[in-house]
Amino acid sequence: MEKNLQRRAVLAAMAGTTVGIAASTPAGANATPATPERLKGYTYPLSPRGVANLAGKPQWHYVGDAVGVEFWTSPEAAAASLPTGLDPDPANPGHGYAVFIDWQFNGATDDYLDPPFSQYSEFLVLLDAQWQGTPVAWCPFIWVDNDASLARGWVQGFPKKMGSIRQTRAFAIDSPAAPTVGKGGRFAAVMSAGGRRLAETTVTLDRTTDRLPALTRPLVNLRHFPRLSAGQHDNPAVHELTMSVLANLKFANTWIGTGELRFLPAPREELADLTPRRVGVGFRGSLSYTVNDLRIL
Amino acid sequence: MEKNLQRRAVLAAMAGTTVGIAASTPAGANATPATPERLKGYTYPLSPRGVANLAGKPQWHYVGDAVGVEFWTSPEAAAASLPTGLDPDPANPGHGYAVFIDWQFNGATDDYLDPPFSQYSEFLVLLDAQWQGTPVAWCPFIWVDNDASLARGWVQGFPKKMGSIRQTRAFAIDSPAAPTVGKGGRFAAVMSAGGRRLAETTVTLDRTTDRLPALTRPLVNLRHFPRLSAGQHDNPAVHELTMSVLANLKFANTWIGTGELRFLPAPREELADLTPRRVGVGFRGSLSYTVNDLRIL
Amino acid sequence: MEKNLQRRAVLAAMAGTTVGIAASTPAGANATPATPERLKGYTYPLSPRGVANLAGKPQWHYVGDAVGVEFWTSPEAAAASLPTGLDPDPANPGHGYAVFIDWQFNGATDDYLDPPFSQYSEFLVLLDAQWQGTPVAWCPFIWVDNDASLARGWVQGFPKKMGSIRQTRAFAIDSPAAPTVGKGGRFAAVMSAGGRRLAETTVTLDRTTDRLPALTRPLVNLRHFPRLSAGQHDNPAVHELTMSVLANLKFANTWIGTGELRFLPAPREELADLTPRRVGVGFRGSLSYTVNDLRIL
Amino acid sequence: MEKNLQRRAVLAAMAGTTVGIAASTPAGANATPATPERLKGYTYPLSPRGVANLAGKPQWHYVGDAVGVEFWTSPEAAAASLPTGLDPDPANPGHGYAVFIDWQFNGATDDYLDPPFSQYSEFLVLLDAQWQGTPVAWCPFIWVDNDASLARGWVQGFPKKMGSIRQTRAFAIDSPAAPTVGKGGRFAAVMSAGGRRLAETTVTLDRTTDRLPALTRPLVNLRHFPRLSAGQHDNPAVHELTMSVLANLKFANTWIGTGELRFLPAPREELADLTPRRVGVGFRGSLSYTVNDLRIL
Repeated sequence: MEKNLQRRAVLAAMAGTTVGIAASTPAGANATPATPERLKGYTYPLSPRGVANLAGKPQWHYVGDAVGVEFWTSPEAAAASLPTGLDPDPANPGHGYAVFIDWQFNGATDDYLDPPFSQYSEFLVLLDAQWQGTPVAWCPFIWVDNDASLARGWVQGFPKKMGSIRQTRAFAIDSPAAPTVGKGGRFAAVMSAGGRRLAETTVTLDRTTDRLPALTRPLVNLRHFPRLSAGQHDNPAVHELTMSVLANLKFANTWIGTGELRFLPAPREELADLTPRRVGVGFRGSLSYTVNDLRIL
Repeated sequence: MEKNLQRRAVLAAMAGTTVGIAASTPAGANATPATPERLKGYTYPLSPRGVANLAGKPQWHYVGDAVGVEFWTSPEAAAASLPTGLDPDPANPGHGYAVFIDWQFNGATDDYLDPPFSQYSEFLVLLDAQWQGTPVAWCPFIWVDNDASLARGWVQGFPKKMGSIRQTRAFAIDSPAAPTVGKGGRFAAVMSAGGRRLAETTVTLDRTTDRLPALTRPLVNLRHFPRLSAGQHDNPAVHELTMSVLANLKFANTWIGTGELRFLPAPREELADLTPRRVGVGFRGSLSYTVNDLRIL
Repeated sequence: MEKNLQRRAVLAAMAGTTVGIAASTPAGANATPATPERLKGYTYPLSPRGVANLAGKPQWHYVGDAVGVEFWTSPEAAAASLPTGLDPDPANPGHGYAVFIDWQFNGATDDYLDPPFSQYSEFLVLLDAQWQGTPVAWCPFIWVDNDASLARGWVQGFPKKMGSIRQTRAFAIDSPAAPTVGKGGRFAAVMSAGGRRLAETTVTLDRTTDRLPALTRPLVNLRHFPRLSAGQHDNPAVHELTMSVLANLKFANTWIGTGELRFLPAPREELADLTPRRVGVGFRGSLSYTVNDLRIL
Repeated sequence: MEKNLQRRAVLAAMAGTTVGIAASTPAGANATPATPERLKGYTYPLSPRGVANLAGKPQWHYVGDAVGVEFWTSPEAAAASLPTGLDPDPANPGHGYAVFIDWQFNGATDDYLDPPFSQYSEFLVLLDAQWQGTPVAWCPFIWVDNDASLARGWVQGFPKKMGSIRQTRAFAIDSPAAPTVGKGGRFAAVMSAGGRRLAETTVTLDRTTDRLPALTRPLVNLRHFPRLSAGQHDNPAVHELTMSVLANLKFANTWIGTGELRFLPAPREELADLTPRRVGVGFRGSLSYTVNDLRIL
C-alpha cells in the first residue's frame, strides 16, 4: 500500500532545475514586483478582499497594563545575546528589564470590540545595548498568546513565539481578591511556553513615578526572514537592524517598588541563560502608543 | 499622572530622520550582511546557542494522517483567490481540495519524542491553477495549532494562521468508539479559529487507492514579508512565487469514497467565499515527505 | 493480537455482585463516613497534604468586571428551562440577563499572586423565576475557562462547562485602543465553546447607576451529582435546589445604557433556545463578594 | 460609587435562616426527589431537551492508545495517598503505574464524528492497594484536556483536573518523523497543568505481550461531592469507595520494554510526592472498553 514516489510523477517538472532557477533570481529583485499584486492585505494571508490577513496595514494602536522588574544578568550572557551591529553598553553591564504586558489593540475602527482578536498578553526581555554609540534596548526574547500579534511583531523585528502569559489584575473595587494599586500592593506575573513555566515575577509597589522604567531607550530589533532554497539557508532574504518608532507614547498610574524575578530553564529555550544575578526596581503601570513606521538602521 | 511624551524625550534621536534613512537603504542590500551574524538559528528568535529558534534549518521530515474532500467552488471565486502570476486552470474551473492533517514532525534527531513541539494539526485549501501553463495547486488559506509549524510554513510561503483542528482517529482495535478503516468507515474533521467553526467535513470510505487525490500537482505558494517603514507598506521586502519541493513523498492506507464539506462565514476570514458548490471524492490516508529546498519561481 | 477479555480475568471478582452490593447500601449512609477520611481537601482530588484539590474549603473571595445585557426570551422557553421546584415569575415573563465576567479569585491568602489559578472568565444566563412565591434568579447555563472555578461552581450548583470568554477591557489611560468608561463608551463580550461562537454582546454606556441590574434577586441553583451504578442512572446522589449566599456584595463603577445580544445555535447546546426577542439595558461595572455558605432549599 | 450591600436588600430573605434550613434537611432525603425532575440530562447542565449536559447517560464506549511505565515510589508515600478504606498491598510496596492515554469516546451513535467532543488525552497514576484483602488499583491523580471527560470521570470517582497531555504517535507509514511500532521503537509522553510540566516519560519497545501491564487489577476510586452549607464543609454529600466495571475490555498491539519516568514538583500539586525511586517495564498499546455501571463498595 505504501508508495515511495520520490519526486517522480508529481515533482519531475521542477526537481532538476531548483538550484539553477533560484540562483538566477537577482538579489533583491523580488522586492519590486513588476506587476502589481492583485491579492490584497499586508501580512499573510493575502486574499481577494484583504480582510483575511493576520495584520492589516498600520497604523496600530496599543494600550496595556505592564508589570516588570529591572535586573542584571551576567555581562557575558547579555553581550552574547546581541546581534552583529549592536555592542554592550559599558555604562551598566548586564542591565535589562523583564516585562509582562496585557495588551488591547486597535488597528482600524473599534477592533477592541473584537476581544479575541484585539487582546493578548506578552512577556519580553529588554537588554541595554549600544548602536553606533547610541544607548538602545535590545529584545532577545518575547512571547505572546495571539497570532495577529505575532504577525505584527515579526514585521517589526520582534522575535515572537507563542506562550501563555498572565498577570495579577487590579479592580476598581476594594476586595480581598485583588491587590491595592498603592503602597504595599503586590502583583505577580508568569509566562509558560510548551507547557513549561519559563518566567515569574512578583512586584511590591512603593511610590508613584512618571513613567515605566523599562521604556527609556529606543527599541532595536532584528528583522529577519530566512530563505529555504537549497544552499541559501544561511543567506536570509531579510536581515536588518531596526529601531521602533513609538508615536504618542503615554504612561499612567505608574508605580515602582521592589521585585523578584526568576527565569527557568527549558529545552528549546535560552531565556534562562540570562538568569538574573540581582534585581532592581519592580514596577507596574499602564502605557499606550501607536506604531506606523519603522526605522531601518 | 498621564504623560504624553509624543516621541520627545525617548525618541528624539530618530524621529526626524526616519524616512530619510529608510530611503537611503539600497533595495536588496539587506539580504547580504557585510559582517556575518553572530547570533545563531534559522527563524526567529536568533540567539547565542541557536536552539531557541522556532524552526531550525531543514531538513524537515513530516508524517501525517489526512482527511479531505474534493470540491468545486465558483470559478470566479477560485480565480479571484489567485495571486498575480498564477492563472486559473481551464481544465477544471473552480476545482480544489479541503484537507485536514494531523502531523508529526522531526527536524533533527527524534523530535517526535517532544510531542508538544513536534505534533500539530492543520487545515488547508488547495485550488487548481496554472503557472506559465504548468498545472499547479495554490494554497489560499491554511491554519495550524503550533507556532513552530507556523514559522516553517511562512518560510515556505504557506500563509498560516493559528486555529483549532481535529479529525476522527482510527485505532488498532475494533471498538464502538472508532470507525473502521474500510468500506463504510466514516471520518469527520473540523476547524475553528477565533472561537468560530470555519470548516467541517465528513468522509465515508469506499475503496483503496494509490495516493491521496489532493497532492497530485506541485504546490505553489507566495512568500511574503512586508515592510513597516512609512511609505513602504505597499512594497514588501519579500514577495515571490515559490514551488514546494517535497522529497521522498510516500502514501499509505489511502481510501477514497464520498464526502460532505462546509465552509462557514466569519469576520476576518474569506474562506467561505470559496464555499463548495458541489463535492467530489472524500478521502483518508497517511502521507510522509521531507522538505529541504524551495524553488523560487 | 486483540484480546477480548470481557470482564473475565480482571473483573470476575465483582462482576456478578455489582447490583446486589449497590442495592445493599442504605440511601444516604454514604454521607456520613463511619471513619474519618484520612485524605485531605475539599473537592477532587483529595490527597495526603490537602493542597492538590481543585478548590479548597471556603471562604472564597471574588472580584470582577462585568459586561451584560437585559433581555426577554419567549416566556415558554424561559419556563421550560426551570427545574422542578421553581415557577415562572408572572411579573415579567421571559425576562433575564446575559452576563460576561472577568474574575479574580482569592481562596486563602494572596491567591491573586497565582494568576493562572485565580483568574478566569465567565458567561452566564440568569432568568427570573419564583421559589415558593419568592422572586429569584435561575442560572440555566454557565461557562468558565478554569477548572478550579468549575469545581467551585459545581459545589454551588452552577452547571459550569468549559468555554472561551473575552470582554473588552478599559484602561487607566486615554487611547484609541480602548473605550471610554463613560457616556458613549462601547464594550463587547463574546463566548465560544467547542470551537463555536455561542454568545456575543455589545453594550453602549449612557449613565451611572448604583448596582449591576443583573444581581437584584437571590440566585437559585440545582446541586446535582448523578449515580453511575446500573439501574440508578435516573436516581442522582445529590439533587437539591440551593440559594446562593453572597456575603459582602459590593459594586463599583457601574454604568448602564443600551445593548445588543445574540445567542447562536450549536449541537450539544440549548442556549439558543433562549434567544432574545428583545433587549433592555446594557451595563458594565465591577463587583465583589465572598462565598462561605449555601442555603439548601 | 462603591456600595457595600452586605446581604441587605438582596439577601435579607435568607441570610438569617441559612443554617436552620440546611440543618432541617434530613440526611439523604435529597437523593430521592418527591417530584420527578422535569429538566433532562445526566450531568450538569440539566436542560429542557437534555442535550446540553456534559455527559449523557451511559453506556460510554472508549478506545485509546496508551504509553506508560511501571514504577515504585516510597512505600510511605504510596500508603499516605490511600483513602480510608484501602490498605497498602504488602505484596509489592510502593508499586504503581504512570499511564498516558489518547482517547476517543462514543456515548451514543457516532460521537467520534465530533472530534472536539469525543477526543481527549489523559494522564493518570495507579497504585497497588488492597480493599478488604482484594488486590486493587487506586488512582490518586488524573488529568484530562476535555470537560466532558472530566464530568464522566467525576461521576466514576476519578478525581480529574484539566491538563495538557501529549504522546508520540505511530503512523501507518515508515518515516523519519515517527518511531517504529516494534523492537527499539521509542515513544515519549508528557503532561503539564497550570503551565508547568508535571510528568514525562520515554518508553523503548522490546517485545509484544498480551495486555497492558497497568490494567490487571480492578480500579477503586473515591466518589466525592462536598457540601458548601456553613458547618458542613467537612461533611461531604457523597463520599464512597467505588470499583470500576469495565465491560468488554480489549487490548491490541501491546508492546513492553524499558522506560524512564519523572514527576516534577509544582505548587498546588502532590504528584511529585510519589516520585519514582525506580522503574520497571515501559509499555505501549491500544485498549478499548465500555462503562455502563459502577460498583459502590
